[in-house]
Amino acid sequence: MPELRKDPIVGRWVIISKERGKRPSDFVVEKEIAKGGFCPLCPGHENTTPEEVLAYGRNHGEPNTPGWTLRVVPNKYPALMIEGDLDKEGEGVYDKMNGVGAHEVIVETPNHNETLAELSPERLVQVLWSYRERIVDLKKDIRFRYVMIFKNYGRAAGASLEHSHSQLIALPVVPELVCEELQGAKTYYNYKERCVFCDIIRQELTRGTRLVCENEDFLTITPFAPRSPFEMWILPKRHSSSYMDVTDGEFSRLAQIFSETFRRLNGAIPHVPYNYVLHTKPLREVASDYYHWHFEIMPKLTMIAGFEWGTGFYINPTPPEDAAKFLRELTI
Amino acid sequence: MPELRKDPIVGRWVIISKERGKRPSDFVVEKEIAKGGFCPLCPGHENTTPEEVLAYGRNHGEPNTPGWTLRVVPNKYPALMIEGDLDKEGEGVYDKMNGVGAHEVIVETPNHNETLAELSPERLVQVLWSYRERIVDLKKDIRFRYVMIFKNYGRAAGASLEHSHSQLIALPVVPELVCEELQGAKTYYNYKERCVFCDIIRQELTRGTRLVCENEDFLTITPFAPRSPFEMWILPKRHSSSYMDVTDGEFSRLAQIFSETFRRLNGAIPHVPYNYVLHTKPLREVASDYYHWHFEIMPKLTMIAGFEWGTGFYINPTPPEDAAKFLRELTI
Repeated sequence: MPELRKDPIVGRWVIISKERGKRPSDFVVEKEIAKGGFCPLCPGHENTTPEEVLAYGRNHGEPNTPGWTLRVVPNKYPALMIEGDLDKEGEGVYDKMNGVGAHEVIVETPNHNETLAELSPERLVQVLWSYRERIVDLKKDIRFRYVMIFKNYGRAAGASLEHSHSQLIALPVVPELVCEELQGAKTYYNYKERCVFCDIIRQELTRGTRLVCENEDFLTITPFAPRSPFEMWILPKRHSSSYMDVTDGEFSRLAQIFSETFRRLNGAIPHVPYNYVLHTKPLREVASDYYHWHFEIMPKLTMIAGFEWGTGFYINPTPPEDAAKFLRELTI
Repeated sequence: MPELRKDPIVGRWVIISKERGKRPSDFVVEKEIAKGGFCPLCPGHENTTPEEVLAYGRNHGEPNTPGWTLRVVPNKYPALMIEGDLDKEGEGVYDKMNGVGAHEVIVETPNHNETLAELSPERLVQVLWSYRERIVDLKKDIRFRYVMIFKNYGRAAGASLEHSHSQLIALPVVPELVCEELQGAKTYYNYKERCVFCDIIRQELTRGTRLVCENEDFLTITPFAPRSPFEMWILPKRHSSSYMDVTDGEFSRLAQIFSETFRRLNGAIPHVPYNYVLHTKPLREVASDYYHWHFEIMPKLTMIAGFEWGTGFYINPTPPEDAAKFLRELTI
């Protein structure tokens, strides 16, 4: 069983995967994702993954067989284990608990070489829809407080498989960074009686210098204080604190702006590695006036080094106004 | 002039280096540090760096000439600029100020290929001494609130020059992560009336499972909740909140444990890239009962990916007890 440990000073949580128990000699630096080898996520290899928890597109077919257009499976090497109790306990000055949680892989396409930027809007709707469906399902497990949806694209951004996929981790605690974001938004709201994200959206739509693209329901901006060059946020224009509240009609516009955003990013810097993270309210909190769900996309173009480790500051050589102008004016 | 920008939600600061103004085509991924080329940090090339602010070992020689054993120079491509006023201002919902600060390079040795693990204890004392001397000097500039000392070793850890060096950045604000650490330590102290670091030191010395090495004045441990495999902290046994208070006698023991720690790390995983950061109290705060200066060393063995970006959690495959045992039992 993995262990969740808390730093007693800053309150940072760490997942210790005892099972992996790496010794020094195990740290072989893999520079590239193996290409052309066996892919456990390709159709026909369904029996090499744990049993699927969700599949779209397979009409009347048996589970764990080909024919799907999207498939969600538990991670074969999970960071957290789905079975067991939390068993919170102390160890002198320290606190720990069992690493209980869900870790799933969302296989976005049956086509090994298809990237997110290449998916049709209809297929992209399935990906975005599956995120909501998995959150709604995992919310039923009362042990979980948060579901984190994220994607690592490219080896430099942490992907270990080439086949296009997102990941999901359900956690028994609300992560520190989510708490900080909620707290910051709440402080702003208490002072101004307005959602800080709504204020940002208004300002960015009016001034336009950091606007990348928009449609009826969504906009993509480069944030004012981006951690990395070409960082982008996709936000809904309608105030809503939870991704679970996206309506069926909004999903097609979300897929449209998602597709446009990644085509612009790929047009600017072809095959750039990136991470994205869905920011949405914790499972057990009611809808709030102060929080606003959104996606944050971080291209992997700079290094996290000693200065960033020590300060939490980031050094970014590309002003977001320059990045937005470039992305906006790109012909895609 | 670079710009310091604050995220209006989480309060994270970002340094936007407008001068560098990188366009997409400028992001060429450098996998390795160029070897064997021209090194601006080697003796004889003193005129290729900005004028030195400190040098040791050059008896009666002219400044900016060879003969030194350690040399501190302003960074030729600084993240912050030493001249100018802060000019704090708003931009609608956002806050920004001029990127005023110092950015210096501490050249640890005249010998291009000599690593920290290879430096003699006497030479290592000079490195550790220079950190203190630069902090004391920069404290005189009333614009500065914090001096961050750090080292990036190896390309994967962010080093762009091969020649062994540390860096220093003086900042006009106390960084967010430092504030969080101070706040966490203060909360613990208010509750227990004891320094959390002193409690950690007592527990680690008693149990010994995470102890790597120790001497009369210092100890090295693998922390209970490490962000990366083989993360280590070097702590003074004597309670002290500021690196400026290290006594002359303590420097030789600090150099001894520094040397032993890096020789053990290098013995475990030869040439492993790493970052280290000196954690010490802000310049304008008085000595405190609740904070305890120390070094944190982070080998670069795992990836920061979407999950870490979203949660602030870290996934670590090596329990610190296993890492400490391995490091402790190594013959060096």
